[in-house]
Amino acid sequence: MKRAVVLLSGGLDSATTLAIAKKDGYELFALSFHYGQRHQVEVTSAQRIAKSLGVNEHRVMEIDLRAIGGSALTDAIEVPKNRSENEISTEIPITYVPARNTIFLSYALAWAEVIDAQDIFIGVNALDYSGYPDCRPEFIFQFEKLAQLATKAGVEGKRYRIHAPLIDLTKAQIIAQGAKLGVQFSLTTSCYDPAADGAACGECDSCLLRAKGFREAGLPDPTRYVHRSRE
Amino acid sequence: MKRAVVLLSGGLDSATTLAIAKKDGYELFALSFHYGQRHQVEVTSAQRIAKSLGVNEHRVMEIDLRAIGGSALTDAIEVPKNRSENEISTEIPITYVPARNTIFLSYALAWAEVIDAQDIFIGVNALDYSGYPDCRPEFIFQFEKLAQLATKAGVEGKRYRIHAPLIDLTKAQIIAQGAKLGVQFSLTTSCYDPAADGAACGECDSCLLRAKGFREAGLPDPTRYVHRSRE
Repeated sequence: MKRAVVLLSGGLDSATTLAIAKKDGYELFALSFHYGQRHQVEVTSAQRIAKSLGVNEHRVMEIDLRAIGGSALTDAIEVPKNRSENEISTEIPITYVPARNTIFLSYALAWAEVIDAQDIFIGVNALDYSGYPDCRPEFIFQFEKLAQLATKAGVEGKRYRIHAPLIDLTKAQIIAQGAKLGVQFSLTTSCYDPAADGAACGECDSCLLRAKGFREAGLPDPTRYVHRSRE
Repeated sequence: MKRAVVLLSGGLDSATTLAIAKKDGYELFALSFHYGQRHQVEVTSAQRIAKSLGVNEHRVMEIDLRAIGGSALTDAIEVPKNRSENEISTEIPITYVPARNTIFLSYALAWAEVIDAQDIFIGVNALDYSGYPDCRPEFIFQFEKLAQLATKAGVEGKRYRIHAPLIDLTKAQIIAQGAKLGVQFSLTTSCYDPAADGAACGECDSCLLRAKGFREAGLPDPTRYVHRSRE
């Protein structure tokens, strides 16, 4: 059975990506990071999702992105709330974490080499997060080329593939696909600024995009919100 | 004053690279990793070198490459000793750490973006370490292309450069250049398997290449050895 390393954040995109890798017949090795994001709730979500989809192994790496800083997700910078769709889509948000996906994919590649996997799945999405440079197809393509050159296995002829099956889907399409594959969205967490008990704020960019996705997909939103500002 | 992030391992290659970046007029930001290598001595060396060359800031990131494994430098695998030059140069050694330079450069890129540097220095060398895929020019070139696509600053037009000034030098040439720039080689550590007090084993590939380099450069070797097998 061919193996895949799947980056799993705890959000609905990566949960859907994991379900796609499962449907494609891979033995699943999920990789999450505890990177000094403000809340542990993402990692807890990732653990529940990994269990619900029957992964072979789930590793959570501790990495200290706070030591580098530069983002509202790792520093004490205010997460923007209740922005318009236009504001969300037209600039690189302060929730951007410098080089994050490069770092995550590097670890995924290292683990893939060790466990003899040649497929890596990442739930990036270029449409709803057009502001993040490392969510674009050209970035993924370039990392795949790097993977060949960066590793012993690549040099010896193994062909690494970076799969980004959500890259050109809307949030509504991702939700529809996840629902079809049996993803339990109630286990996922998207909020950038959740309450201590894990409830979503309902007002950050990520909550707004998620709620809109469920509306457009015509599916019930199982998210537990603190505020429901956009009802 | 333009800023550079310099990857600093504590070995003589990265110490020489730091001295080159200094000579080139950069404000120096040194980045080291404590990555579950067997010994703390490398990090201590990096701290001394950073101080001796007057860096602006030196960060040591804790990262857990042991959690990924697959190398004699992070796992409990025996480091090979007293191999011939032919054995050293013709295969990928078990001291290869999967995707290590990709991970290190990713962090360097993240920090460069945060501190507004666009130059990253890495002391890789393709001649003496031909076995390591991520020490080759094509890898460095590919990472430089990735850096443009991976970052907010790159997308906004900043041109990142990955400098690998030692890439086609022999160990003897590196030592000669470092000596000219005033690198205190007695502060550096190359050994893969040092004694508890930091003394070099004198028998691993890295010790053998280092000793040969000093011999060929016609310079005294200040390394403190446990054994001096190749005298």
